[in-house]
Amino acid sequence: MLELVIGNKNYSSWSMRPWVLLKHFGIAFTERKLRFSRDPQSPFHTELARISPVGLVPVLVDDGFAVWDTLAIVEYLAERHPEHAIWPRERQARARARSVVAEMHAGFGALRQHLPQNIEARLPEVGARVLAEQPAVQRNLDRVVGLWTDALQTSGGPFLFGEFSAADAFYAPLAGRLITYGIALPPELQAYVDRLWASPGVAAWVADALAEKDFIDFEEPYRQQA
Amino acid sequence: MLELVIGNKNYSSWSMRPWVLLKHFGIAFTERKLRFSRDPQSPFHTELARISPVGLVPVLVDDGFAVWDTLAIVEYLAERHPEHAIWPRERQARARARSVVAEMHAGFGALRQHLPQNIEARLPEVGARVLAEQPAVQRNLDRVVGLWTDALQTSGGPFLFGEFSAADAFYAPLAGRLITYGIALPPELQAYVDRLWASPGVAAWVADALAEKDFIDFEEPYRQQA
Repeated sequence: MLELVIGNKNYSSWSMRPWVLLKHFGIAFTERKLRFSRDPQSPFHTELARISPVGLVPVLVDDGFAVWDTLAIVEYLAERHPEHAIWPRERQARARARSVVAEMHAGFGALRQHLPQNIEARLPEVGARVLAEQPAVQRNLDRVVGLWTDALQTSGGPFLFGEFSAADAFYAPLAGRLITYGIALPPELQAYVDRLWASPGVAAWVADALAEKDFIDFEEPYRQQA
Repeated sequence: MLELVIGNKNYSSWSMRPWVLLKHFGIAFTERKLRFSRDPQSPFHTELARISPVGLVPVLVDDGFAVWDTLAIVEYLAERHPEHAIWPRERQARARARSVVAEMHAGFGALRQHLPQNIEARLPEVGARVLAEQPAVQRNLDRVVGLWTDALQTSGGPFLFGEFSAADAFYAPLAGRLITYGIALPPELQAYVDRLWASPGVAAWVADALAEKDFIDFEEPYRQQA
C-alpha cells in the first residue's frame, strides 16, 4: 500500500505534485499530513526524520520503502503503474516532458522565492509589486509562457503533452501562483490554467487546501493573518 | 547519431555527468564543446539558442531532436540503451538511485556555489576557509557523507549502487570538488572517490579537462590565473 507524506496543502507546492498525480490517475494511497513547523521537536521534524534522510516532504512510502524527492517519486509511480500514461507514451514527447519537469525541479528559483504558494490567498497587489521590482521573476514568467506555448502548440492540448501527464502535475503549483498573485497570461495559456485547475486531481487538492484554514506565519511573507 | 553539447571540461559539472555516463558505457557519441562566455554574441550563446530554449549545457541532440537538462538526458539514454544498467536493475536500488540523483539535481546549493568545479586546480586553503566560514557548505558535506555511506553499505560497493550507474556519474563532479579543495573524508569514502576518479568515463573526462588549459576568469572566483 502507498502512503504519501505531505505538508500543508495550502502551502506545500512539492507535496501537491505527486498527490495530484496519484489522485488524477486514481491510484490508491493514503496521505499523512505533517503540519509545517520550525520546531525541531514537532511531528514535521521527528516523523520525517524517521523515514527520510533529507527531512523534506513529500515522501512516498511503499510497504515501508521510502522514496524521497518528487522527481524520483514520479519515476517510481510511472514504473509501478505502466497502465497509466504518467509520462507521455510517445518517445519524443516523453523526453520533452521530462526536460520541462527537470527544469521546474531545479529552476524557477526567483518565482518560487518571491511568489510562494498560497492557494487560498488573493494577492494581486503583491504580484504587481514583485513583477515591478524583481526582473528575475519576470524572466521566469517569460520562460513559463514560452514553455507552455511550445508544448501546447506541439501537442494540440488540452494538456501540455496531450492528455494530463506528470508535466501538468509539476506545473500545477505554478498555475496556482499565477492565480494567487493575479498575473495575467495570454488567453490560450489562461485557458490552459483554467483546464488544469478544473482537472480532477488538481481540483481535489485545491478543495482540501481551501478547507485547511491553518495559518502558518513563516509561510506568509505578505500577510499577518489569513 | 548522438551529439552531446557541453561547456568547458575543467569547469562544467553539469556537462560532465552525461558525458561520463556515455563514455563509461561505451555509447557512441560526438561532442560539441562551446567555450563558456558571457558575451551574448559568442558561440556559447548563439549556438545554444538554436538548439535549446533554456540556453544551458548540456544538451543531447539525437538526430536533430534536442533533450536538455541532465536528468532528462539520463532518462532518455536509459530508455535508448536498455542493454546498459544506466540505472540499477533492482527496483528499490533504482528508486534510491533516482532519489539521490534528484537530490543532487536540485540541492547542494551552498557547496556548488562556494566550491565551484575546477578540476585542474588544487585549492586546499580555499576549502579550509569556506568550511570555516560557511556552515551551509559543511551541512551539504555532512549529507554527502551520510548518503555515500548509506549507499555503499547497502550495496556493498564498489560504486554507490553496486556497479557504476547514473548515480556515480551524478556525484563524480562533487568528488572532484573534494579533491580540488582538499576536503578530507573517512577512509572508506576516500576509497570510493579514488575508485570513481579511476573509472574509465571519469578518468577520460579528467584527462581532457587537464589538457584543456583554457582559463576563464568568471569561473575562477579564487584565482587570477591558472
